[in-house]
Amino acid sequence: MKLSNRIQNMQFSPIRKLAPYAAEAKKRGIHVYHLNIGQPDVLTPEQFFKAIANFKEDVLKYTESQGMDILQESFIEYYKKWKTQFTKDELFITNGGSEAIMLTFMAICDPGDEILAPEPFYTNYNGFAEVASAKMTPFLTKAEEGFHLPPKEEIIKKITNKTRAIMISNPGNPTGVVYTSEELRMLGDIVKEYDLYLIADEVYREFVYDGLQYTSALSMKDIADRVIVIDSISKRYSACGARIGLVASKNKDLMYNIMKLCQSRLCVPTVEQVGAAALKDTPDSYFAETRAEYQKRRDIMMEGLNKIPGVICQKPTGAFYIVTKLPVEDAEDFAKFLLTDFSHNGKTVMVAPAEGFYATPGLGKDEIRLSYCLNCESLKDAMDLIGMAVTKYKEIHK
Amino acid sequence: MKLSNRIQNMQFSPIRKLAPYAAEAKKRGIHVYHLNIGQPDVLTPEQFFKAIANFKEDVLKYTESQGMDILQESFIEYYKKWKTQFTKDELFITNGGSEAIMLTFMAICDPGDEILAPEPFYTNYNGFAEVASAKMTPFLTKAEEGFHLPPKEEIIKKITNKTRAIMISNPGNPTGVVYTSEELRMLGDIVKEYDLYLIADEVYREFVYDGLQYTSALSMKDIADRVIVIDSISKRYSACGARIGLVASKNKDLMYNIMKLCQSRLCVPTVEQVGAAALKDTPDSYFAETRAEYQKRRDIMMEGLNKIPGVICQKPTGAFYIVTKLPVEDAEDFAKFLLTDFSHNGKTVMVAPAEGFYATPGLGKDEIRLSYCLNCESLKDAMDLIGMAVTKYKEIHK
Repeated sequence: MKLSNRIQNMQFSPIRKLAPYAAEAKKRGIHVYHLNIGQPDVLTPEQFFKAIANFKEDVLKYTESQGMDILQESFIEYYKKWKTQFTKDELFITNGGSEAIMLTFMAICDPGDEILAPEPFYTNYNGFAEVASAKMTPFLTKAEEGFHLPPKEEIIKKITNKTRAIMISNPGNPTGVVYTSEELRMLGDIVKEYDLYLIADEVYREFVYDGLQYTSALSMKDIADRVIVIDSISKRYSACGARIGLVASKNKDLMYNIMKLCQSRLCVPTVEQVGAAALKDTPDSYFAETRAEYQKRRDIMMEGLNKIPGVICQKPTGAFYIVTKLPVEDAEDFAKFLLTDFSHNGKTVMVAPAEGFYATPGLGKDEIRLSYCLNCESLKDAMDLIGMAVTKYKEIHK
Repeated sequence: MKLSNRIQNMQFSPIRKLAPYAAEAKKRGIHVYHLNIGQPDVLTPEQFFKAIANFKEDVLKYTESQGMDILQESFIEYYKKWKTQFTKDELFITNGGSEAIMLTFMAICDPGDEILAPEPFYTNYNGFAEVASAKMTPFLTKAEEGFHLPPKEEIIKKITNKTRAIMISNPGNPTGVVYTSEELRMLGDIVKEYDLYLIADEVYREFVYDGLQYTSALSMKDIADRVIVIDSISKRYSACGARIGLVASKNKDLMYNIMKLCQSRLCVPTVEQVGAAALKDTPDSYFAETRAEYQKRRDIMMEGLNKIPGVICQKPTGAFYIVTKLPVEDAEDFAKFLLTDFSHNGKTVMVAPAEGFYATPGLGKDEIRLSYCLNCESLKDAMDLIGMAVTKYKEIHK
């Protein structure tokens, strides 16, 4: 009995692979601050819970493969705020942003095809590419430059006849970069010139700080049929467990074909759709408060990092992650050390080694991704712990 | 911009592709009996709704990639009734049986690999194989033989060096066949001899009629590490909309690798897991009543079919489907006719053309799949309507 090469080539999620060590630490009575995962502690809007508490049918039925009417309509309403009109055949509900990415890769990639993306990128893009027997092809962006895009020629020299799309996460996971309208325009020009799709993972759209203006890929009307948007309620409404996302595109031929994939898995869970549809009544103040809170957290995390000698990172302007270089050789070993050999006052921290966010072997070995999803007090404490752990780790490994 | 060959090769679900015509008929005020889809009208146990009505967290969080502890434990408890002990690393929660199949194909197939299956088979197997760039390879079973397995030599002559598994649905969707213990043993011997997996889709395990004894693939202890079980609560508890399934295997190496795929899509929705976990308290009487009800429905459907001249089908003994030959040349055209050109007393029927349940081109063109998920009265009415429609259709097409 064989296992597929595909699955043997896949990596365990760098966000979750150290989970067993965290579980062990907890068994030893140690409190673990989870900076490894983008699991916000912000309250989910009560509309969600009210809707599911009121849900009562006699039979829990399949819904439409493209999603329930009320949920499609709720998203169509939401996008009007972003000056985009979608129709129901341009926007399908998925099992989280994850499934939206997978459906997209399946629809545009055959085995061996390539998706071009700025590196580091969200680690699970690799997994989805592997599932589609396709490949993530990276072009490098650097911590020193705040992970902004390189010049056009650096990007186009990575395009081959196997390239099907450029994929960005904007605001960026794991980098926190928010691309300028000029950067977006450059990508728009490239996909036009080279006949590619632009896959825009915009699940952190609301998480932009310092009063920056956000530019969605949807704003470029001249490439509307090339843009595929990945979206999700997970971060926007702190509802990760709902697994409600969507894939949207003005390219009706593409969406017509994606519908086949939607039909093959029948539908997305009913109750979570009912809850998600109710989120359209979330007041604007929710987003303003959340944004202000995250900006404060980012500042606390940056302050903590700046206190650690040898750390290299730029202040990010979006999402809720920071990728930082640490003064250690092997950041995964350090991450493991935090869980197995370090604690202070009965507490430690779990972080995500950043190597898994790179496609180029060897890159990111001395980097970690930190999520600032925890409240300010916990974050301060966690950053102090990381500082102490770095000192202790360096003593042992000098 | 290209679309993948993979997606262009995919078909629309034969169960759902005629849905637009049904929608049109409904707009004209016509009542449509849905015999096309396995959407039971049996009540979902109230335990499910109670659990979700009581669900209240501050933050709707991600759960474990393998599923929530309470749900894994609930399934482990359930399997004890079937004399199988699973541990948590042998049983992962999935987005319906659909995702369980997809994870399985991904884990054992590389592009070009083959899954051997008795034909006709559940149409979406084709879709999942296409997604994995793999191929369903059929061996024929016949309506006249109640869709039981052919002799061993008919099966093994379809095995190539690309074959990775034999896949069965037992009880069978769409055929309603329940395999004997001898048939299971034959498959067990083949997978041993040819070093294959046996993928057993047993989501209809409780739906076996006429006092027949059910044999699960899990009963063959000598091939335990080759068996991959696909399961789901959709039919068992009439909870299709929950999209809660599982993949289970005693092959720990396989499951260890499937965990990578589970991690890449993060987790299954939280609320539906909480509801599903509560289903373990469903009384045994629920299954006994449901079984009795479906057996009655099957008999009504068979009676209705036997009244139509030229119909060929055997009484099935499991699940809740019948595949039947109709005295028409093009069953898909007939199915469309039912929705667009036929009605009686303001009513008509939607059926699934069976061609999409075959992998061999040309087969099943004069067959349909009927689901007996509706109450007895509706079923009687629907069968009368089909009878009248066949007569009318033949008049027009003679």
